[in-house]
Amino acid sequence: MEQINDMIPVTPSPFPRIVVLGGGFAGISLVKKLKGSRVQIVLFDRNNYHTFQPLLYQVATAGLEPDSIADPLRKQLEPVKNFYFRMGEVFAVDPNQKLIRTEIGTMSYDYLVIATGSKTNYFGNESVMQNAFPLKQIPQALDLRSHILQNFEAATITRDPIELESRMNILIVGGGPTGVEVAGALGELKKNILPNDYPELEFEKMKIVLLEGSDRLLNGMSEHSGEKALQYLKKFDVDIQLKTLVTGYDGHVATLNNDTSIRSHTLIWAAGVQGNYPDGLPEEAQQGGRLIVDGYNRVKGCEDVYAIGDVASMQTEDFPRGHPMLAPVAIQQGRHFARNFKKMLKGGEMEPFSYHDKGSMATIGRNKAVVDWGKLQFGGFIAWMIWMFVHLISIIGFRNRLIVFSNWVWNYFTYDKGTRLIIRKFIPKNKLKTEETV
Amino acid sequence: MEQINDMIPVTPSPFPRIVVLGGGFAGISLVKKLKGSRVQIVLFDRNNYHTFQPLLYQVATAGLEPDSIADPLRKQLEPVKNFYFRMGEVFAVDPNQKLIRTEIGTMSYDYLVIATGSKTNYFGNESVMQNAFPLKQIPQALDLRSHILQNFEAATITRDPIELESRMNILIVGGGPTGVEVAGALGELKKNILPNDYPELEFEKMKIVLLEGSDRLLNGMSEHSGEKALQYLKKFDVDIQLKTLVTGYDGHVATLNNDTSIRSHTLIWAAGVQGNYPDGLPEEAQQGGRLIVDGYNRVKGCEDVYAIGDVASMQTEDFPRGHPMLAPVAIQQGRHFARNFKKMLKGGEMEPFSYHDKGSMATIGRNKAVVDWGKLQFGGFIAWMIWMFVHLISIIGFRNRLIVFSNWVWNYFTYDKGTRLIIRKFIPKNKLKTEETV
Repeated sequence: MEQINDMIPVTPSPFPRIVVLGGGFAGISLVKKLKGSRVQIVLFDRNNYHTFQPLLYQVATAGLEPDSIADPLRKQLEPVKNFYFRMGEVFAVDPNQKLIRTEIGTMSYDYLVIATGSKTNYFGNESVMQNAFPLKQIPQALDLRSHILQNFEAATITRDPIELESRMNILIVGGGPTGVEVAGALGELKKNILPNDYPELEFEKMKIVLLEGSDRLLNGMSEHSGEKALQYLKKFDVDIQLKTLVTGYDGHVATLNNDTSIRSHTLIWAAGVQGNYPDGLPEEAQQGGRLIVDGYNRVKGCEDVYAIGDVASMQTEDFPRGHPMLAPVAIQQGRHFARNFKKMLKGGEMEPFSYHDKGSMATIGRNKAVVDWGKLQFGGFIAWMIWMFVHLISIIGFRNRLIVFSNWVWNYFTYDKGTRLIIRKFIPKNKLKTEETV
Repeated sequence: MEQINDMIPVTPSPFPRIVVLGGGFAGISLVKKLKGSRVQIVLFDRNNYHTFQPLLYQVATAGLEPDSIADPLRKQLEPVKNFYFRMGEVFAVDPNQKLIRTEIGTMSYDYLVIATGSKTNYFGNESVMQNAFPLKQIPQALDLRSHILQNFEAATITRDPIELESRMNILIVGGGPTGVEVAGALGELKKNILPNDYPELEFEKMKIVLLEGSDRLLNGMSEHSGEKALQYLKKFDVDIQLKTLVTGYDGHVATLNNDTSIRSHTLIWAAGVQGNYPDGLPEEAQQGGRLIVDGYNRVKGCEDVYAIGDVASMQTEDFPRGHPMLAPVAIQQGRHFARNFKKMLKGGEMEPFSYHDKGSMATIGRNKAVVDWGKLQFGGFIAWMIWMFVHLISIIGFRNRLIVFSNWVWNYFTYDKGTRLIIRKFIPKNKLKTEETV
């Protein structure tokens, strides 16, 4: 057995150690439910905070402050005793030696839970990956906010009509909930806010284009909701192009599969995600970017290794390709696995996971949302109120709830969004030099 | 006359053009008061927002969100017609050709107002400049917040007692209002918040040291207030060393002029500021880092060039070395100059500026502040309430007032601070590589 010199210290404990990778919805739901168990819990995350991803698009579109949708993991999990947080990216798992390797050192585990979520999927398109804006993390949302505002500042001083067009246009790829919500929020900015900020610019010239590969929006929801979302977005003057794919993007012009092109300095990529997990797991467990787990979240071909949330592909009769990569699945799997794990520790029988679908929803903008509740499908103001209520009660931390609510009330009644700030200028990767602090 | 190819475009106007450099207290006070004048106003700032500097230390110490103390300049100055904002750093002034040169191009002016404020003064100490944390801008406050939290994360995994000490200690240099306020806020964090977040660390070992070169704190205020501040800070367990200067700092150890040294990964430099102005101004106008102006804010040796706020040194009988570099002076000079300028445009007589001192104050922490109102000097809870009230009504934008107030109420009753987030990791300048987005 190799000698390990870089063991990450934690206080010794007589209890077995469960290491959890990732402080997303799945990871924190699990840790909270393990409160009071006779285990030592160590949570790893590359950030010291949990991100409330469903509202990330509001940070990108100047509706919310970044801190409002983030909550410090240490604070949130303070009530759990025997809990240790370690900030650092996890590179690899060694299931034979029961070790993980991270940027801050190595750690052994008795039980390992992989809850590392998902990352942006560019489907191998290198030029898009280099130049598009993803929307999965808070710094990315801030980069996008800065970039959009910087483009309008640049638009006020350009004399080149082609540059002007490209700076003002915004292209969104992907007609799922993120794409639809971003497009709606940008439509609101264009309608109510930007013309006041930039009276010199003609906003009739600004195009917001939403591209979707299939023949409808919101594929995960009902046809009714997809159709409603399309109508609402048109009211916000969003140009929707269905059955259209991006084939390349150089940062200024996007080429499409219908042989046309669109000029835009901003391409927001909301077209897909894939599982995100460390190296070292067996071949047989990896399929389509996710980890195959059985009904008890056990990763195929490993012992004492589990996966929950987006990264886990639990293939059942109802979900032959795994459950959808959604927050409710992650939360339910985190809680269910905690119960199973506690039973197992006591020598009891585990129970297979079954997903309780509570419906889905998406907001398009002011007074406009769509909701699917089983056979019930509706849109409009009531849907919008429900969307706001559900998101407010889901966001973690009472303080965040208060601040998000205050902001929404403010934005609603003033037709204003307070955070049109370029706190750190966005510098494209290819222009970043050694000395620059961004 | 040279040919200029990079003129920044603005809509042509029949009115004379006044160019204002800097959207700080002086600049925005001036622009607001020029509302309705028959001039074209162009404001330059390197940021698209105004920073409410008096609360910057609360962003650095996790009490407030960065967006709460910033307000977009375009939004704020929307009511002023004939107003243009241009984002870009101004490098130089050419008073002969009546031009300014900026990172986004060149612009001509009829009247120029320099309101570029002040920057950190390291008094030529190169090692301090390289490694200390200044506190003049929002990104600096965010860097400091991240750095302090990263140090505590690193402290939980180090086995080296010297590193542990250095990571936990914080050194503040400068016993003026900023130094005192930062020290107090850090004392509160140490007492009420950090021990909950990091139960593994022994906070008795954490030292917060405040160094001041003179023999008292708050030199700009009364002796009574300086003495009170000292007592309050001691209650927050801040170690105060008077008559002490830093001679060098390598990022881990600070050497002092009394031949001792202090280990700390964090040195906050609040020991001095100096005027900050572009190149190209006459020698005779520059003195001690500021620009000499007469009683009408006219820069010495220039025509149609004015300076207001921190950057201006108006030497009067009461203020033989210029007015103090404070927000109230900047605001009053901005407003006064606007009145003078409007009179001048109409061919009237200008009036010399006279400063109306409304007193000064500083907060030390929970329930503790000091106030000087002329001969009246007092501290404690009442002073603290006054401090909060004055800062709340001074902060620009009703939305910001609401959010700051909500945060304060929350922090006060919960003994919590919500924003202990490392949104963008701080990477020291010497470790920044090409590819890293910070």
